[in-house]
Amino acid sequence: MDIKNLSREQLSERLAVLTEEYNSYKAMGLKLDMSRGKPGADQLELTNEMLSPVYLGDYKASNGFDVRNYGILDGIPECKQMFAEVLGVKPENTIVFGNASLTIMYDYIAQCMIFGAGDEPWCKQEGIKFLCPVPGYDRHFSILEHFGIEMINIPTTSEGPDMDMIDELIKDEKVKGIICVPMYSNPTGYTYSDETVRRFASLKPAAKDFRVIWDNAYCVHHINSEHDVLLNIFDAAKGNGTEDYFIEVTSTSKVTFPGAGVSVLAASDANIATIKSRMTIQTIGYDKINQLRHTNYLKNLAGIEAHMLRHAEILKPKFDAVLSAFDNKLAGKGIAEWTVPNGGYFISLDVYEGCAKRTVALCKEAGVTLTGAGATYPYGKDPEDKNIRIAPTFPSRDELCKAVEILCLCVEIAAIEKILA
Amino acid sequence: MDIKNLSREQLSERLAVLTEEYNSYKAMGLKLDMSRGKPGADQLELTNEMLSPVYLGDYKASNGFDVRNYGILDGIPECKQMFAEVLGVKPENTIVFGNASLTIMYDYIAQCMIFGAGDEPWCKQEGIKFLCPVPGYDRHFSILEHFGIEMINIPTTSEGPDMDMIDELIKDEKVKGIICVPMYSNPTGYTYSDETVRRFASLKPAAKDFRVIWDNAYCVHHINSEHDVLLNIFDAAKGNGTEDYFIEVTSTSKVTFPGAGVSVLAASDANIATIKSRMTIQTIGYDKINQLRHTNYLKNLAGIEAHMLRHAEILKPKFDAVLSAFDNKLAGKGIAEWTVPNGGYFISLDVYEGCAKRTVALCKEAGVTLTGAGATYPYGKDPEDKNIRIAPTFPSRDELCKAVEILCLCVEIAAIEKILA
Repeated sequence: MDIKNLSREQLSERLAVLTEEYNSYKAMGLKLDMSRGKPGADQLELTNEMLSPVYLGDYKASNGFDVRNYGILDGIPECKQMFAEVLGVKPENTIVFGNASLTIMYDYIAQCMIFGAGDEPWCKQEGIKFLCPVPGYDRHFSILEHFGIEMINIPTTSEGPDMDMIDELIKDEKVKGIICVPMYSNPTGYTYSDETVRRFASLKPAAKDFRVIWDNAYCVHHINSEHDVLLNIFDAAKGNGTEDYFIEVTSTSKVTFPGAGVSVLAASDANIATIKSRMTIQTIGYDKINQLRHTNYLKNLAGIEAHMLRHAEILKPKFDAVLSAFDNKLAGKGIAEWTVPNGGYFISLDVYEGCAKRTVALCKEAGVTLTGAGATYPYGKDPEDKNIRIAPTFPSRDELCKAVEILCLCVEIAAIEKILA
Repeated sequence: MDIKNLSREQLSERLAVLTEEYNSYKAMGLKLDMSRGKPGADQLELTNEMLSPVYLGDYKASNGFDVRNYGILDGIPECKQMFAEVLGVKPENTIVFGNASLTIMYDYIAQCMIFGAGDEPWCKQEGIKFLCPVPGYDRHFSILEHFGIEMINIPTTSEGPDMDMIDELIKDEKVKGIICVPMYSNPTGYTYSDETVRRFASLKPAAKDFRVIWDNAYCVHHINSEHDVLLNIFDAAKGNGTEDYFIEVTSTSKVTFPGAGVSVLAASDANIATIKSRMTIQTIGYDKINQLRHTNYLKNLAGIEAHMLRHAEILKPKFDAVLSAFDNKLAGKGIAEWTVPNGGYFISLDVYEGCAKRTVALCKEAGVTLTGAGATYPYGKDPEDKNIRIAPTFPSRDELCKAVEILCLCVEIAAIEKILA
């Protein structure tokens, strides 16, 4: 029953019923959090074993280097090898960094600002812009805003961003790049289609110092056994001569421990050389003890995939709980649409137009914290005020079920209020 | 016997004898390294115990936060507390970072370039300068050179840098700061006198966006039981209203593990607020598992001091070996001077003027690697070509004794060559 077909009287009656239910929840004084892409407590337990000194052996990397001392700028060989397998690149096209890929991205853009990605530092060029597939990741947008880079929204479908629009916009040489999550995207969970990746690989930007930040954060984060496959961007770029446009990053933050994982950057020979030359100034090297611990524990791509299955066992019931509540409570009402991801950390919920802020506020009042409405858009401005990022991973399944129940109620209340207004 | 008093004939004879001795060393095909401020293998063993999961307990910080998950931007409370005690500041004036203070300094200067330390980014101001007490730390100079900041040499004595010269130079508002190691300085091992610290604390720079990078790397790195004491810069700055000028850093790189330690920044309330606001964009947080491991193992300043005594037991014989070789082979010859540090990682050797490069080259040929001549000066240019940084920590004591023997030989050969030329 599409509620938009109801009469005003029917809507008012329904609103009264829903409000009563809502108030009874509100009276419970709940405190539930669906706002953050944080692993749950049970997921953290999966990797405790890695903290045993067994995984440090005699503290020697495969090249005989003592990981407890200074040295090795770009990562111990076995760790580079492991990430190279994960990303489908050569080990020499990887650099292992510290605990977070967010910091790699911040640093890379900071260095483009000061030193440039080509001949001229970005900070010397007025009015530079980035294209931002939306809805997207708020922390990407924060970095760009921080550096004063203008952001342009690019709508996305289940295939990925609107590539025609991108092709058109990059004719402007002030457009310096794109930042995106190509697999199990934050928040939609969509994975770019092969065609989309091929179009990325054949971009012809006017700017010679153009860069795509290819944040492959969720490359091994499958939830369903039938999982998505992302075409390898560097393979696709070969032949087009576009390898230098792409800076790919990922990390083990949601494989092992958030904040205590290992991150990696993959790039072309030329970009690796530039980045390494800057690194020699910036650091003596990253935490190699943690690199050895990770590599000895996870071993290789197969090891990581096996470990990720254990995460999926915990995550799938949580995603299912949200999706089945949406199906039961919202389907067919004509007031909400949502994505059904095969992996990643989020579900994207589009509520009735103009109702995202109100929905989030209603939830908040009833003790359910959601990601702020607008957060999935540059400058926090969702032009249609309808997208809400749902993060099902951190609460327990019981908490989650209650939280989603309340959310569905709020979605409907906000929609009816809007229709009646 | 000052060799400068010898006749040319006597010098030639002596050169022949020394050269024969040198050639016999050369024939041995030695490979000895006194170039790097790296702990020796035996020092690394001292901290293995810290890698036991015992020191992670139930993975909870003192505020109940699970260190295995995202969160806590500026360090777990007990880690901030520990470093606050070490540096003599309040915990709220510290931020715990990743594995290296070098990266903190690079980052801080990068952010001054892009965003400024005051109203105007440094990158928008042409011709900015830093004052560099010399001899100093090559990696400091590399960072400044990398960002295109002009460096001006400030001579130092055992009291610290020439403060009259600094007072004069900072009348130029293009002079944006000073970078220095105030305690057991790299390479001299000198600690700034109370008077020097007080003069730093009362600097009156023309530049409103003036900053002193106070790299207190060796604050707990005593070698002798009678150790130096550095006046607390923030205590001294109080009353002068100069707290905002100072950015202090240190780390556990040479307390626990180089590359796998924990670093910290201490600063005024205003600077902490600015740095934190930038950090919220740059990172979700640093490795809190490593912070907890460190704090549970080292506990507090007393724990760190006890741990450092074990390092000193290993280091003192190495420093003594170098110093007694210098005494035996070089003292009274009028061709070399050296420092006698109570702590830190280096001894500074001044050879006969114009002979540092030649001495290092002679050593190299005989299989002894030293830090490159000139490395202790900005742009690698030692104006008198006389300073050599001696790093006694990495070789074994036997290797070190042989290396110093050869070094002393080379110092004298180079000096005689020069006098005869």
